[in-house]
Amino acid sequence: MLESLKSEVCQANLDLVKHGLVIFTWGNVSAIDREAGLVVIKPSGVAYDGMKPEQMVVVDLDGKVVEGSLKPSSDMPTHVALYNAFPEIGGVVHTHSTYGTAWAQAGIDLPIVGTTHADYFADTIPCTRDMTEGEVKGDYEKETGTVIIERFEGLNPNHIPGVLVKNHAPFTWGKDAHDAVHNSVVLEQVAKMAYIGKMLNPEMGMNGLLTKKHFERKHGKNAYYGQ
Amino acid sequence: MLESLKSEVCQANLDLVKHGLVIFTWGNVSAIDREAGLVVIKPSGVAYDGMKPEQMVVVDLDGKVVEGSLKPSSDMPTHVALYNAFPEIGGVVHTHSTYGTAWAQAGIDLPIVGTTHADYFADTIPCTRDMTEGEVKGDYEKETGTVIIERFEGLNPNHIPGVLVKNHAPFTWGKDAHDAVHNSVVLEQVAKMAYIGKMLNPEMGMNGLLTKKHFERKHGKNAYYGQ
Amino acid sequence: MLESLKSEVCQANLDLVKHGLVIFTWGNVSAIDREAGLVVIKPSGVAYDGMKPEQMVVVDLDGKVVEGSLKPSSDMPTHVALYNAFPEIGGVVHTHSTYGTAWAQAGIDLPIVGTTHADYFADTIPCTRDMTEGEVKGDYEKETGTVIIERFEGLNPNHIPGVLVKNHAPFTWGKDAHDAVHNSVVLEQVAKMAYIGKMLNPEMGMNGLLTKKHFERKHGKNAYYGQ
Amino acid sequence: MLESLKSEVCQANLDLVKHGLVIFTWGNVSAIDREAGLVVIKPSGVAYDGMKPEQMVVVDLDGKVVEGSLKPSSDMPTHVALYNAFPEIGGVVHTHSTYGTAWAQAGIDLPIVGTTHADYFADTIPCTRDMTEGEVKGDYEKETGTVIIERFEGLNPNHIPGVLVKNHAPFTWGKDAHDAVHNSVVLEQVAKMAYIGKMLNPEMGMNGLLTKKHFERKHGKNAYYGQ
Repeated sequence: MLESLKSEVCQANLDLVKHGLVIFTWGNVSAIDREAGLVVIKPSGVAYDGMKPEQMVVVDLDGKVVEGSLKPSSDMPTHVALYNAFPEIGGVVHTHSTYGTAWAQAGIDLPIVGTTHADYFADTIPCTRDMTEGEVKGDYEKETGTVIIERFEGLNPNHIPGVLVKNHAPFTWGKDAHDAVHNSVVLEQVAKMAYIGKMLNPEMGMNGLLTKKHFERKHGKNAYYGQ
Repeated sequence: MLESLKSEVCQANLDLVKHGLVIFTWGNVSAIDREAGLVVIKPSGVAYDGMKPEQMVVVDLDGKVVEGSLKPSSDMPTHVALYNAFPEIGGVVHTHSTYGTAWAQAGIDLPIVGTTHADYFADTIPCTRDMTEGEVKGDYEKETGTVIIERFEGLNPNHIPGVLVKNHAPFTWGKDAHDAVHNSVVLEQVAKMAYIGKMLNPEMGMNGLLTKKHFERKHGKNAYYGQ
Repeated sequence: MLESLKSEVCQANLDLVKHGLVIFTWGNVSAIDREAGLVVIKPSGVAYDGMKPEQMVVVDLDGKVVEGSLKPSSDMPTHVALYNAFPEIGGVVHTHSTYGTAWAQAGIDLPIVGTTHADYFADTIPCTRDMTEGEVKGDYEKETGTVIIERFEGLNPNHIPGVLVKNHAPFTWGKDAHDAVHNSVVLEQVAKMAYIGKMLNPEMGMNGLLTKKHFERKHGKNAYYGQ
Repeated sequence: MLESLKSEVCQANLDLVKHGLVIFTWGNVSAIDREAGLVVIKPSGVAYDGMKPEQMVVVDLDGKVVEGSLKPSSDMPTHVALYNAFPEIGGVVHTHSTYGTAWAQAGIDLPIVGTTHADYFADTIPCTRDMTEGEVKGDYEKETGTVIIERFEGLNPNHIPGVLVKNHAPFTWGKDAHDAVHNSVVLEQVAKMAYIGKMLNPEMGMNGLLTKKHFERKHGKNAYYGQ
């Protein structure tokens, strides 16, 4: 069942290690088969070293396990909430990468101050609000999805493929698992550069024209970009 | 004598290198056999490269060497003090890891500002007070244990498995040597992220509800966590 | 055609990876054959892993492709503008290296505060101005060259072989591709050290005499330097 | 001639690379044979990769080349000045290591704020004054030694085996080449930790009693230290 997607998701999880985004098991990747309405996700608490595609867990869009002998990642309900809310995304990544997590802990939106950022994210990467007592004590991981989705009211998740969950860490997404991992790497790197820049010049900013130019030369109708 | 524990302690010392927590011989791990009342610890000043289980030193809970041709780590009396004071811990680690040590040198408690921290430490990681002239000139390494234990009055060492010794460096502990090393890695990573976050937003904080949720979903009665 | 230059340019692109200056395809190197008036540059969007000399693209000094089945890097018009304006340079490098890019995003000139900097760059590494609407909406990559060249009015590009493009990233150059890469490594390292130094002492500065001494003992008529 | 010392010096230079203290050729190590009054030092501008003991250069205590077909490092006169002024040292190291150099560029003494520092350096690591016009235009590398020696008036170079040369970088020394490299690694690490600590708490400080305890338990008459 979904053999090819399981391989992709397994590999994408291993790529988190290769890109230095995770220590221990602090990260997870999923991908969706939109036709089947099924999500493939990393199993819970399994180490990356030696992870196999057949260990991936299959869940439906209600978050019920459809296949797999292991439990899905405990962050699964957040992944599923995002697939339900953002119909064009095909992969989701969650990590506790150093700089992205530090911005999330600081509770600050990650400002768009450079073309590296604008090449992948059309605007500021938003940070969610504090969760309420009801959300924390209730179906916490699902409600984590809820606050992300609320934060994207009026924003285009296809143009801003990531978020900072306050006091927690980033989530990113993309057209598939590989693309979502790619966006995680970018988020971590722009988080690091924006941190250094903010220390050098707290007033730093960026011309909106330039932002638009960079996003569109790469993602617009007449895209031509390639370094 | 205690062959299996010596292997564990030796491996845990080598894991400090693997996780980038030590340079030269700046770190040491011990573990205790509670039934026998004996502690196995790294020998003094021995390089990690080529270290063997049979070089580990065995001491009793008064800090007297029971077996081993090498001297125990000079930090041994601190380890022994912790085993005596905290009856449920099975392993102790001391390193001069970069960010943990920097917070210790700054003399500041490491604040709990994210779920990465709350997944392992239920609250702020405390920093000890200045040592007195008597403590420094007396049985210094044992007194280092004393100030740690004093700092934990009213705190649960099983829920906060680590401390910053002021102007010195962190100690962590856990149910065994491996777990104590794991907590050292976590302490260093959360120290790094809290540093970056504090630079971004000196007023950062975290909802106590969220703290409790994260610690309990991993360590509480109904633990279910696993990324 | 230009076999030897293609090999050099390919190797110089791979050296960006070796020196940790790029992730993904975020960087490109070119070199010029001044006699032939032809520039060899990295192809667009090609990964470094497995890149071959025969994939390099040849363009003339109007930016027209003369040879190559792949498209040239989208930054090619900036490279060509620099070769046209600075007649003594033989190689150009563009990267989004972490600290250099952070200074560019902060929009601040990189000050000369140490001999490491002065050994390679005779003065502050300048940052360009904001681009106008016309420049951004027009021939953007070529105009990026224009603002660099404008910033160098009154400056000697042979003595200051690099620039920060505001909200974008650094460009460096040199007598050939290898030398331009060398200057990229230096720019990144001095950007990192100047960042740390500015945090420690915002008033830091450097005696102009010492600057001159270091640049001239290495690049002056009676150069004698070598660590 | 001095075969064994050449091997030691060559290996010590290669150790700078292993410890991540140098890029390109930005560092050099020497050692002295006190009986012969001869210094062995890295040749000028030679890459570390493939460096051989027989390439080392031998100079006397006036800085004259006694043996070797290559030129000595251009920093040689500073090394020689230190050997002449500090009669008990056996090895000297100069690097542009990142954090040590940043403190030197900031022009600030590196404060003693932790036991890691106190285990090797008995007090603050001093920063030299600005050099005068005469010193810079005169025998510059020798005068670099002069300002270091002047800064150590009233200080014990055996207890503080290193210095920050303002706007330049650190020099360290030790009983032999290996020990001097060891002190370079320590200086870089304590420079990094003191940087982070100063950002966290600009008022940080350390009890002089603790400083003395740590230095003496390792270097005093009754030394017993070993982690």
